[in-house]
Amino acid sequence: MTGRDGGAPLVPIDPSPIVILVRPQLAENIGACARAMANGGLFHLRLVAPRDGWPQERAWRSASGADRILDAAQIHPDLAGATADLHRVFATCPRPRQVIKPVLTARGASAELHAILRRGLRCGLLFGPERAGLDSEDMARADALIRYPLNPEFSSLNLAQAVMIMAYEWWLTTDETPPHTLMTNATEVADKAELDNFLSHLIRELDACGFLRNAPKRPGMVRNLRHFFARGEVTQQELRTLHGVVTELASGRGTR
Amino acid sequence: MTGRDGGAPLVPIDPSPIVILVRPQLAENIGACARAMANGGLFHLRLVAPRDGWPQERAWRSASGADRILDAAQIHPDLAGATADLHRVFATCPRPRQVIKPVLTARGASAELHAILRRGLRCGLLFGPERAGLDSEDMARADALIRYPLNPEFSSLNLAQAVMIMAYEWWLTTDETPPHTLMTNATEVADKAELDNFLSHLIRELDACGFLRNAPKRPGMVRNLRHFFARGEVTQQELRTLHGVVTELASGRGTR
Repeated sequence: MTGRDGGAPLVPIDPSPIVILVRPQLAENIGACARAMANGGLFHLRLVAPRDGWPQERAWRSASGADRILDAAQIHPDLAGATADLHRVFATCPRPRQVIKPVLTARGASAELHAILRRGLRCGLLFGPERAGLDSEDMARADALIRYPLNPEFSSLNLAQAVMIMAYEWWLTTDETPPHTLMTNATEVADKAELDNFLSHLIRELDACGFLRNAPKRPGMVRNLRHFFARGEVTQQELRTLHGVVTELASGRGTR
Repeated sequence: MTGRDGGAPLVPIDPSPIVILVRPQLAENIGACARAMANGGLFHLRLVAPRDGWPQERAWRSASGADRILDAAQIHPDLAGATADLHRVFATCPRPRQVIKPVLTARGASAELHAILRRGLRCGLLFGPERAGLDSEDMARADALIRYPLNPEFSSLNLAQAVMIMAYEWWLTTDETPPHTLMTNATEVADKAELDNFLSHLIRELDACGFLRNAPKRPGMVRNLRHFFARGEVTQQELRTLHGVVTELASGRGTR
Protein backbone atom coordinates (compact mmCIF):
# COMPACT_ATOMS: atom_id res chain seq x y z
CA MET A 1 0.00 0.00 0.00
CA THR A 2 3.00 2.34 0.08
CA GLY A 3 4.98 4.08 -2.64
CA ARG A 4 8.47 3.16 -3.74
CA ASP A 5 10.25 5.15 -1.11
CA GLY A 6 7.64 4.59 1.59
CA GLY A 7 7.58 8.35 2.01
CA ALA A 8 4.86 10.82 2.82
CA PRO A 9 1.63 10.61 0.89
CA LEU A 10 1.02 13.08 -1.91
CA VAL A 11 -0.70 16.19 -0.69
CA PRO A 12 -3.70 16.51 -2.96
CA ILE A 13 -3.87 19.93 -4.60
CA ASP A 14 -7.56 19.49 -5.23
CA PRO A 15 -9.68 16.43 -4.78
CA SER A 16 -9.29 14.39 -7.94
CA PRO A 17 -10.22 10.86 -8.94
CA ILE A 18 -7.72 8.08 -8.33
CA VAL A 19 -6.46 6.38 -11.48
CA ILE A 20 -6.40 2.61 -10.98
CA LEU A 21 -4.49 0.55 -13.53
CA VAL A 22 -5.75 -3.01 -13.28
CA ARG A 23 -3.13 -5.70 -13.99
CA PRO A 24 -1.01 -3.44 -16.22
CA GLN A 25 1.54 -5.35 -18.25
CA LEU A 26 4.31 -3.01 -19.41
CA ALA A 27 6.13 -0.71 -17.04
CA GLU A 28 6.69 1.73 -19.92
CA ASN A 29 2.95 2.09 -20.22
CA ILE A 30 2.58 2.74 -16.50
CA GLY A 31 5.11 5.55 -16.85
CA ALA A 32 3.34 6.93 -19.92
CA CYS A 33 0.07 6.86 -17.97
CA ALA A 34 1.67 8.85 -15.15
CA ARG A 35 2.85 11.43 -17.69
CA ALA A 36 -0.65 11.71 -19.17
CA MET A 37 -2.12 12.01 -15.67
CA ALA A 38 0.22 14.90 -14.89
CA ASN A 39 -0.78 16.58 -18.17
CA GLY A 40 -4.40 16.62 -17.06
CA GLY A 41 -3.99 17.24 -13.34
CA LEU A 42 -4.64 13.72 -12.05
CA PHE A 43 -2.12 12.89 -9.35
CA HIS A 44 -3.21 9.72 -7.56
CA LEU A 45 -2.24 6.34 -9.00
CA ARG A 46 -2.97 2.83 -7.80
CA LEU A 47 -1.71 -0.33 -9.46
CA VAL A 48 -3.52 -3.64 -9.11
CA ALA A 49 -1.17 -6.61 -9.51
CA PRO A 50 1.22 -5.16 -12.10
CA ARG A 51 2.42 -8.12 -14.16
CA ASP A 52 6.14 -7.51 -13.80
CA GLY A 53 6.10 -6.38 -10.19
CA TRP A 54 6.82 -2.95 -8.77
CA PRO A 55 8.79 -0.72 -8.78
CA GLN A 56 10.18 -0.92 -12.32
CA GLU A 57 12.78 1.61 -13.39
CA ARG A 58 11.39 1.57 -16.91
CA ALA A 59 8.22 3.24 -15.64
CA TRP A 60 10.18 6.18 -14.30
CA ARG A 61 12.13 6.46 -17.55
CA SER A 62 8.94 6.76 -19.63
CA ALA A 63 7.21 9.19 -17.26
CA SER A 64 9.09 12.25 -18.57
CA GLY A 65 9.33 13.76 -15.13
CA ALA A 66 6.01 12.71 -13.63
CA ASP A 67 8.04 10.89 -10.97
CA ARG A 68 6.02 12.22 -8.08
CA ILE A 69 3.00 10.27 -9.26
CA LEU A 70 4.96 7.03 -9.60
CA ASP A 71 6.77 7.57 -6.30
CA ALA A 72 3.44 7.78 -4.51
CA ALA A 73 1.68 4.99 -6.41
CA GLN A 74 -0.09 2.46 -4.22
CA ILE A 75 0.14 -1.23 -5.04
CA HIS A 76 -2.77 -3.59 -4.35
CA PRO A 77 -3.02 -7.34 -4.94
CA ASP A 78 -6.63 -7.11 -6.09
CA LEU A 79 -9.26 -4.64 -7.23
CA ALA A 80 -11.37 -5.08 -4.09
CA GLY A 81 -8.48 -3.72 -2.03
CA ALA A 82 -7.74 -0.92 -4.48
CA THR A 83 -11.33 0.34 -4.33
CA ALA A 84 -12.13 -0.41 -0.67
CA ASP A 85 -11.90 3.20 0.55
CA LEU A 86 -13.66 4.69 -2.50
CA HIS A 87 -17.28 5.70 -2.79
CA ARG A 88 -17.73 5.71 -6.55
CA VAL A 89 -15.88 3.79 -9.22
CA PHE A 90 -16.07 4.36 -12.98
CA ALA A 91 -14.56 1.86 -15.41
CA THR A 92 -13.29 2.73 -18.87
CA CYS A 93 -14.57 0.15 -21.29
CA PRO A 94 -14.03 0.51 -25.02
CA ARG A 95 -16.24 -2.37 -26.13
CA PRO A 96 -19.91 -2.85 -25.36
CA ARG A 97 -20.36 -5.69 -22.89
CA GLN A 98 -23.30 -7.78 -21.81
CA VAL A 99 -23.99 -5.71 -18.74
CA ILE A 100 -26.65 -3.40 -17.42
CA LYS A 101 -24.84 -0.27 -16.35
CA PRO A 102 -24.88 3.47 -16.84
CA VAL A 103 -22.55 4.47 -19.66
CA LEU A 104 -20.86 7.86 -19.72
CA THR A 105 -18.80 9.70 -22.27
CA ALA A 106 -15.41 10.89 -21.03
CA ARG A 107 -16.81 14.40 -20.85
CA GLY A 108 -19.95 13.26 -19.03
CA ALA A 109 -17.86 11.21 -16.61
CA SER A 110 -15.57 14.14 -15.87
CA ALA A 111 -18.51 16.40 -15.06
CA GLU A 112 -20.00 13.74 -12.77
CA LEU A 113 -16.65 13.13 -11.06
CA HIS A 114 -16.23 16.82 -10.33
CA ALA A 115 -19.71 16.94 -8.85
CA ILE A 116 -19.20 13.80 -6.75
CA LEU A 117 -15.80 14.90 -5.45
CA ARG A 118 -17.19 18.27 -4.45
CA ARG A 119 -19.48 16.34 -2.09
CA GLY A 120 -16.40 14.98 -0.33
CA LEU A 121 -16.64 11.45 -1.76
CA ARG A 122 -13.66 9.53 -3.12
CA CYS A 123 -13.71 8.31 -6.71
CA GLY A 124 -11.71 5.88 -8.79
CA LEU A 125 -11.19 5.49 -12.53
CA LEU A 126 -10.43 1.94 -13.69
CA PHE A 127 -8.29 1.14 -16.73
CA GLY A 128 -7.82 -2.47 -17.81
CA PRO A 129 -4.73 -4.37 -18.95
CA GLU A 130 -3.26 -3.47 -22.34
CA ARG A 131 -4.34 -6.55 -24.22
CA ALA A 132 -7.68 -7.68 -22.87
CA GLY A 133 -9.09 -4.69 -21.02
CA LEU A 134 -11.15 -5.06 -17.86
CA ASP A 135 -12.86 -8.40 -17.35
CA SER A 136 -16.47 -8.96 -16.30
CA GLU A 137 -15.59 -9.27 -12.62
CA ASP A 138 -13.75 -5.95 -12.70
CA MET A 139 -16.67 -4.23 -14.34
CA ALA A 140 -19.16 -5.60 -11.81
CA ARG A 141 -17.32 -3.45 -9.23
CA ALA A 142 -17.90 -0.27 -11.20
CA ASP A 143 -20.85 2.06 -10.72
CA ALA A 144 -20.70 3.17 -14.33
CA LEU A 145 -18.78 2.54 -17.52
CA ILE A 146 -17.00 5.21 -19.52
CA ARG A 147 -16.96 4.82 -23.27
CA TYR A 148 -15.14 7.40 -25.35
CA PRO A 149 -16.89 8.53 -28.51
CA LEU A 150 -14.30 7.48 -31.11
CA ASN A 151 -14.22 5.88 -34.54
CA PRO A 152 -16.12 2.58 -34.09
CA GLU A 153 -14.18 1.15 -37.04
CA PHE A 154 -10.92 1.56 -35.15
CA SER A 155 -11.44 1.74 -31.42
CA SER A 156 -8.30 -0.06 -30.21
CA LEU A 157 -6.83 2.47 -27.83
CA ASN A 158 -3.38 2.43 -26.29
CA LEU A 159 -3.53 2.38 -22.45
CA ALA A 160 -1.75 5.71 -22.02
CA GLN A 161 -3.97 7.23 -24.72
CA ALA A 162 -7.04 6.11 -22.79
CA VAL A 163 -5.66 7.76 -19.65
CA MET A 164 -4.72 10.87 -21.68
CA ILE A 165 -8.27 11.41 -22.95
CA MET A 166 -9.74 11.06 -19.48
CA ALA A 167 -7.07 13.35 -17.97
CA TYR A 168 -7.66 15.88 -20.73
CA GLU A 169 -11.42 15.90 -20.10
CA TRP A 170 -10.78 16.12 -16.35
CA TRP A 171 -8.75 19.27 -16.92
CA LEU A 172 -11.23 20.74 -19.41
CA THR A 173 -14.21 20.52 -17.08
CA THR A 174 -12.87 23.41 -15.04
CA ASP A 175 -10.88 25.13 -17.78
CA GLU A 176 -12.13 28.44 -19.10
CA THR A 177 -9.77 29.09 -22.00
CA PRO A 178 -11.72 30.83 -24.76
CA PRO A 179 -11.76 28.71 -27.94
CA HIS A 180 -10.26 31.52 -30.04
CA THR A 181 -7.95 34.31 -28.89
CA LEU A 182 -5.20 36.40 -30.43
CA MET A 183 -1.74 35.85 -28.98
CA THR A 184 0.21 39.08 -29.07
CA ASN A 185 3.86 39.65 -28.40
CA ALA A 186 4.09 42.57 -25.99
CA THR A 187 1.79 44.50 -28.28
CA GLU A 188 -1.90 45.35 -28.45
CA VAL A 189 -4.62 44.88 -31.00
CA ALA A 190 -4.79 48.13 -32.98
CA ASP A 191 -7.96 50.16 -32.81
CA LYS A 192 -9.74 51.46 -35.90
CA ALA A 193 -8.11 54.92 -35.70
CA GLU A 194 -4.64 53.33 -35.83
CA LEU A 195 -5.72 51.20 -38.78
CA ASP A 196 -7.18 54.28 -40.55
CA ASN A 197 -3.94 56.14 -39.94
CA PHE A 198 -2.02 53.38 -41.73
CA LEU A 199 -4.52 53.24 -44.59
CA SER A 200 -4.21 57.02 -45.04
CA HIS A 201 -0.44 56.64 -45.25
CA LEU A 202 -0.77 53.83 -47.80
CA ILE A 203 -3.29 55.70 -49.95
CA ARG A 204 -1.23 58.89 -49.84
CA GLU A 205 1.77 57.02 -51.21
CA LEU A 206 -0.33 55.20 -53.79
CA ASP A 207 -1.69 58.55 -54.95
CA ALA A 208 1.86 59.90 -55.12
CA CYS A 209 3.09 57.06 -57.28
CA GLY A 210 0.07 57.17 -59.57
CA PHE A 211 -1.35 53.74 -58.69
CA LEU A 212 -4.75 55.35 -58.01
CA ARG A 213 -4.72 57.77 -60.92
CA ASN A 214 -7.83 56.28 -62.57
CA ALA A 215 -10.38 58.61 -60.92
CA PRO A 216 -13.56 56.56 -61.62
CA LYS A 217 -11.94 53.41 -60.24
CA ARG A 218 -10.20 55.08 -57.30
CA PRO A 219 -13.05 54.76 -54.71
CA GLY A 220 -13.48 51.05 -55.39
CA MET A 221 -9.74 50.37 -55.22
CA VAL A 222 -9.46 52.23 -51.92
CA ARG A 223 -12.45 50.33 -50.59
CA ASN A 224 -10.89 46.99 -51.59
CA LEU A 225 -7.73 47.88 -49.69
CA ARG A 226 -9.82 48.86 -46.69
CA HIS A 227 -11.66 45.52 -46.89
CA PHE A 228 -8.39 43.60 -47.00
CA PHE A 229 -6.93 45.26 -43.92
CA ALA A 230 -10.22 44.97 -42.02
CA ARG A 231 -10.36 41.19 -42.32
CA GLY A 232 -9.23 40.51 -38.78
CA GLU A 233 -7.43 41.89 -35.81
CA VAL A 234 -4.19 43.72 -36.61
CA THR A 235 -1.73 44.57 -33.86
CA GLN A 236 0.03 47.85 -33.26
CA GLN A 237 3.37 46.15 -33.93
CA GLU A 238 2.16 44.83 -37.26
CA LEU A 239 0.97 48.33 -38.23
CA ARG A 240 4.39 49.74 -37.40
CA THR A 241 5.95 47.15 -39.70
CA LEU A 242 3.46 47.94 -42.45
CA HIS A 243 4.11 51.70 -42.12
CA GLY A 244 7.80 50.93 -42.54
CA VAL A 245 7.17 48.73 -45.58
CA VAL A 246 5.17 51.47 -47.32
CA THR A 247 7.69 54.18 -46.43
CA GLU A 248 10.63 52.11 -47.66
CA LEU A 249 8.94 51.02 -50.87
CA ALA A 250 8.01 54.65 -51.61
CA SER A 251 11.44 56.07 -50.74
CA GLY A 252 13.15 53.88 -53.34
CA ARG A 253 10.79 55.07 -56.05
CA GLY A 254 12.47 56.52 -59.07
CA THR A 255 15.93 55.43 -58.03
CA ARG A 256 15.78 52.18 -59.97
CA MET B 1 5.05 12.43 -52.61
CA THR B 2 3.85 8.83 -52.85
CA GLY B 3 3.11 6.22 -50.23
CA ARG B 4 5.24 3.20 -49.46
CA ASP B 5 3.75 1.02 -52.13
CA GLY B 6 3.24 3.83 -54.60
CA GLY B 7 -0.40 2.73 -54.76
CA ALA B 8 -3.64 4.57 -55.16
CA PRO B 9 -4.34 7.51 -52.88
CA LEU B 10 -6.66 7.00 -49.94
CA VAL B 11 -10.24 7.68 -50.85
CA PRO B 12 -11.37 10.23 -48.30
CA ILE B 13 -14.50 9.13 -46.45
CA ASP B 14 -15.26 12.69 -45.50
CA PRO B 15 -13.14 15.75 -45.91
CA SER B 16 -10.80 15.86 -42.95
CA PRO B 17 -7.68 17.80 -42.11
CA ILE B 18 -4.30 16.42 -43.13
CA VAL B 19 -2.00 15.57 -40.25
CA ILE B 20 1.52 16.80 -41.01
CA LEU B 21 4.32 15.51 -38.80
CA VAL B 22 7.24 17.90 -39.18
CA ARG B 23 10.69 16.26 -38.91
CA PRO B 24 9.45 13.36 -36.74
CA GLN B 25 12.28 11.45 -35.09
CA LEU B 26 11.10 8.01 -34.05
CA ALA B 27 9.28 5.68 -36.42
CA GLU B 28 7.43 4.16 -33.44
CA ASN B 29 5.94 7.56 -32.76
CA ILE B 30 4.83 7.93 -36.38
CA GLY B 31 3.03 4.59 -36.08
CA ALA B 32 1.47 5.59 -32.77
CA CYS B 33 0.29 8.83 -34.40
CA ALA B 34 -1.34 6.85 -37.21
CA ARG B 35 -3.14 4.72 -34.63
CA ALA B 36 -4.39 7.82 -32.80
CA MET B 37 -5.49 9.35 -36.11
CA ALA B 38 -7.54 6.25 -36.92
CA ASN B 39 -9.12 6.40 -33.46
CA GLY B 40 -10.44 9.86 -34.20
CA GLY B 41 -11.23 9.54 -37.89
CA LEU B 42 -8.27 11.40 -39.36
CA PHE B 43 -6.93 9.48 -42.34
CA HIS B 44 -4.47 11.69 -44.21
CA LEU B 45 -0.84 11.78 -43.12
CA ARG B 46 2.12 13.70 -44.47
CA LEU B 47 5.66 13.46 -43.18
CA VAL B 48 8.16 16.28 -43.57
CA ALA B 49 11.75 15.02 -43.61
CA PRO B 50 11.40 12.12 -41.15
CA ARG B 51 14.77 11.83 -39.42
CA ASP B 52 15.38 8.14 -40.11
CA GLY B 53 13.94 8.05 -43.62
CA TRP B 54 10.82 6.36 -44.86
CA PRO B 55 9.35 3.75 -44.88
CA GLN B 56 10.34 2.28 -41.51
CA GLU B 57 8.90 -1.10 -40.53
CA ARG B 58 8.83 -0.01 -36.88
CA ALA B 59 6.13 2.51 -37.75
CA TRP B 60 3.84 -0.21 -39.05
CA ARG B 61 4.51 -2.37 -35.98
CA SER B 62 3.40 0.39 -33.61
CA ALA B 63 0.34 1.38 -35.64
CA SER B 64 -1.81 -1.49 -34.31
CA GLY B 65 -3.50 -1.97 -37.65
CA ALA B 66 -3.72 1.60 -38.87
CA ASP B 67 -1.60 0.48 -41.83
CA ARG B 68 -3.78 2.12 -44.42
CA ILE B 69 -2.81 5.54 -43.09
CA LEU B 70 0.92 4.75 -43.17
CA ASP B 71 0.66 3.08 -46.59
CA ALA B 72 -0.78 6.28 -48.03
CA ALA B 73 1.46 8.72 -46.15
CA GLN B 74 3.05 11.37 -48.34
CA ILE B 75 6.68 12.33 -47.80
CA HIS B 76 7.90 15.87 -48.36
CA PRO B 77 11.39 17.30 -48.03
CA ASP B 78 10.11 20.55 -46.50
CA LEU B 79 7.06 22.14 -44.97
CA ALA B 80 6.49 24.48 -47.91
CA GLY B 81 5.94 21.45 -50.13
CA ALA B 82 3.78 19.67 -47.59
CA THR B 83 1.44 22.65 -47.31
CA ALA B 84 1.53 23.90 -50.92
CA ASP B 85 -1.93 22.57 -51.90
CA LEU B 86 -3.59 23.52 -48.61
CA HIS B 87 -5.69 26.60 -47.92
CA ARG B 88 -5.47 26.75 -44.12
CA VAL B 89 -2.81 25.46 -41.78
CA PHE B 90 -3.05 25.20 -37.97
CA ALA B 91 0.02 24.42 -35.89
CA THR B 92 -0.07 22.70 -32.51
CA CYS B 93 2.18 24.58 -30.15
CA PRO B 94 2.36 23.72 -26.46
CA ARG B 95 4.47 26.67 -25.37
CA PRO B 96 3.70 30.36 -25.84
CA ARG B 97 6.00 31.85 -28.44
CA GLN B 98 6.93 35.37 -29.40
CA VAL B 99 4.45 35.55 -32.23
CA ILE B 100 1.28 37.40 -33.13
CA LYS B 101 -1.18 34.74 -34.12
CA PRO B 102 -4.68 33.52 -33.37
CA VAL B 103 -4.60 30.80 -30.73
CA LEU B 104 -7.25 28.11 -30.60
CA THR B 105 -8.07 25.38 -28.13
CA ALA B 106 -8.22 21.87 -29.60
CA ARG B 107 -12.00 22.07 -29.41
CA GLY B 108 -12.12 25.50 -30.99
CA ALA B 109 -9.74 24.38 -33.74
CA SER B 110 -11.83 21.31 -34.49
CA ALA B 111 -14.97 23.38 -34.87
CA GLU B 112 -13.18 25.83 -37.18
CA LEU B 113 -11.69 22.99 -39.24
CA HIS B 114 -15.10 21.42 -39.76
CA ALA B 115 -16.47 24.79 -40.88
CA ILE B 116 -13.55 25.47 -43.23
CA LEU B 117 -13.62 21.99 -44.77
CA ARG B 118 -17.34 22.27 -45.41
CA ARG B 119 -16.48 25.22 -47.67
CA GLY B 120 -14.39 22.89 -49.80
CA LEU B 121 -11.00 24.17 -48.60
CA ARG B 122 -8.12 21.88 -47.65
CA CYS B 123 -6.61 22.10 -44.17
CA GLY B 124 -3.48 20.86 -42.46
CA LEU B 125 -2.59 20.26 -38.82
CA LEU B 126 1.10 20.62 -37.98
CA PHE B 127 2.84 18.67 -35.22
CA GLY B 128 6.49 19.34 -34.45
CA PRO B 129 9.39 16.99 -33.73
CA GLU B 130 9.35 15.07 -30.44
CA ARG B 131 12.08 16.98 -28.70
CA ALA B 132 11.93 20.59 -29.80
CA GLY B 133 8.47 21.07 -31.28
CA LEU B 134 7.86 23.33 -34.25
CA ASP B 135 10.40 26.09 -34.83
CA SER B 136 9.66 29.74 -35.56
CA GLU B 137 9.90 29.25 -39.34
CA ASP B 138 7.37 26.42 -39.19
CA MET B 139 4.97 28.51 -37.18
CA ALA B 140 5.21 31.47 -39.54
CA ARG B 141 3.54 29.20 -42.13
CA ALA B 142 0.53 28.56 -39.90
CA ASP B 143 -2.66 30.61 -39.94
CA ALA B 144 -3.30 29.85 -36.29
CA LEU B 145 -1.79 28.04 -33.34
CA ILE B 146 -3.54 25.34 -31.35
CA ARG B 147 -2.79 25.16 -27.65
CA TYR B 148 -4.44 22.46 -25.57
CA PRO B 149 -5.75 23.53 -22.20
CA LEU B 150 -3.67 21.25 -19.94
CA ASN B 151 -1.84 21.47 -16.65
CA PRO B 152 0.60 24.38 -17.13
CA GLU B 153 2.88 22.85 -14.49
CA PHE B 154 3.36 19.75 -16.65
CA SER B 155 2.66 20.43 -20.28
CA SER B 156 5.27 18.16 -21.91
CA LEU B 157 3.12 16.10 -24.25
CA ASN B 158 4.14 12.98 -26.11
CA LEU B 159 3.76 13.40 -29.90
CA ALA B 160 1.16 10.65 -30.27
CA GLN B 161 -0.72 12.04 -27.27
CA ALA B 162 -0.84 15.44 -28.98
CA VAL B 163 -2.25 13.82 -32.12
CA MET B 164 -4.68 11.78 -29.98
CA ILE B 165 -6.21 14.84 -28.35
CA MET B 166 -6.68 16.58 -31.68
CA ALA B 167 -8.13 13.41 -33.27
CA TYR B 168 -10.46 12.95 -30.30
CA GLU B 169 -11.73 16.51 -30.57
CA TRP B 170 -12.09 16.10 -34.33
CA TRP B 171 -14.36 13.10 -33.75
CA LEU B 172 -16.30 14.79 -30.94
CA THR B 173 -17.28 17.84 -32.99
CA THR B 174 -19.77 15.75 -34.95
CA ASP B 175 -20.47 13.12 -32.30
CA GLU B 176 -23.86 13.14 -30.64
CA THR B 177 -23.44 10.49 -27.95
CA PRO B 178 -25.43 11.56 -24.91
CA PRO B 179 -23.14 12.09 -21.90
CA HIS B 180 -25.10 9.60 -19.76
CA THR B 181 -27.11 6.59 -20.94
CA LEU B 182 -28.05 3.20 -19.54
CA MET B 183 -26.57 0.25 -21.34
CA THR B 184 -28.99 -2.64 -21.24
CA ASN B 185 -28.43 -6.22 -22.23
CA ALA B 186 -31.36 -7.23 -24.44
CA THR B 187 -33.69 -5.82 -21.80
CA GLU B 188 -35.65 -2.64 -21.23
CA VAL B 189 -35.81 -0.09 -18.46
CA ALA B 190 -38.74 -1.11 -16.24
CA ASP B 191 -41.68 1.24 -15.95
CA LYS B 192 -43.15 2.31 -12.63
CA ALA B 193 -45.92 -0.33 -12.74
CA GLU B 194 -43.33 -3.10 -13.06
CA LEU B 195 -41.36 -1.61 -10.19
CA ASP B 196 -44.55 -1.33 -8.08
CA ASN B 197 -45.33 -4.95 -8.85
CA PHE B 198 -41.98 -5.99 -7.45
CA LEU B 199 -42.35 -3.78 -4.38
CA SER B 200 -45.78 -5.32 -3.70
CA HIS B 201 -44.20 -8.75 -3.90
CA LEU B 202 -41.43 -7.74 -1.51
CA ILE B 203 -43.76 -6.09 0.98
CA ARG B 204 -46.15 -9.06 0.91
CA GLU B 205 -43.32 -11.39 1.86
CA LEU B 206 -41.99 -8.99 4.47
CA ASP B 207 -45.48 -8.85 5.99
CA ALA B 208 -45.63 -12.64 5.93
CA CYS B 209 -42.33 -13.04 7.75
CA GLY B 210 -43.19 -10.39 10.32
CA PHE B 211 -40.47 -7.89 9.34
CA LEU B 212 -43.11 -5.13 9.10
CA ARG B 213 -45.12 -6.13 12.16
CA ASN B 214 -44.53 -2.83 14.00
CA ALA B 215 -47.67 -1.06 12.76
CA PRO B 216 -46.68 2.54 13.63
CA LYS B 217 -43.33 2.12 11.87
CA ARG B 218 -44.63 0.15 8.90
CA PRO B 219 -45.48 3.11 6.60
CA GLY B 220 -42.04 4.65 7.05
CA MET B 221 -40.26 1.34 6.47
CA VAL B 222 -42.24 0.71 3.31
CA ARG B 223 -41.52 4.23 2.13
CA ASN B 224 -37.78 3.77 2.72
CA LEU B 225 -37.79 0.62 0.59
CA ARG B 226 -39.67 2.48 -2.11
CA HIS B 227 -37.10 5.29 -1.96
CA PHE B 228 -34.23 2.81 -2.30
CA PHE B 229 -35.65 1.11 -5.37
CA ALA B 230 -36.60 4.43 -6.96
CA ARG B 231 -33.06 5.76 -6.93
CA GLY B 232 -32.40 5.16 -10.60
CA GLU B 233 -33.42 3.21 -13.62
CA VAL B 234 -34.05 -0.49 -13.02
CA THR B 235 -34.33 -2.90 -15.92
CA GLN B 236 -36.95 -5.59 -16.45
CA GLN B 237 -34.22 -8.24 -16.23
CA GLU B 238 -33.03 -6.89 -12.90
CA LEU B 239 -36.61 -6.95 -11.59
CA ARG B 240 -36.96 -10.61 -12.64
CA THR B 241 -33.79 -11.39 -10.69
CA LEU B 242 -35.06 -9.48 -7.65
CA HIS B 243 -38.44 -11.28 -7.79
CA GLY B 244 -36.50 -14.55 -7.77
CA VAL B 245 -34.33 -13.46 -4.86
CA VAL B 246 -37.38 -12.57 -2.73
CA THR B 247 -39.23 -15.76 -3.66
CA GLU B 248 -36.25 -17.97 -2.89
CA LEU B 249 -35.45 -16.22 0.40
CA ALA B 250 -39.09 -16.56 1.47
CA SER B 251 -39.43 -20.19 0.39
CA GLY B 252 -36.55 -21.26 2.62
CA ARG B 253 -38.15 -19.61 5.62
CA GLY B 254 -38.69 -21.87 8.62
CA THR B 255 -36.73 -24.73 7.11
CA ARG B 256 -33.50 -23.74 8.84
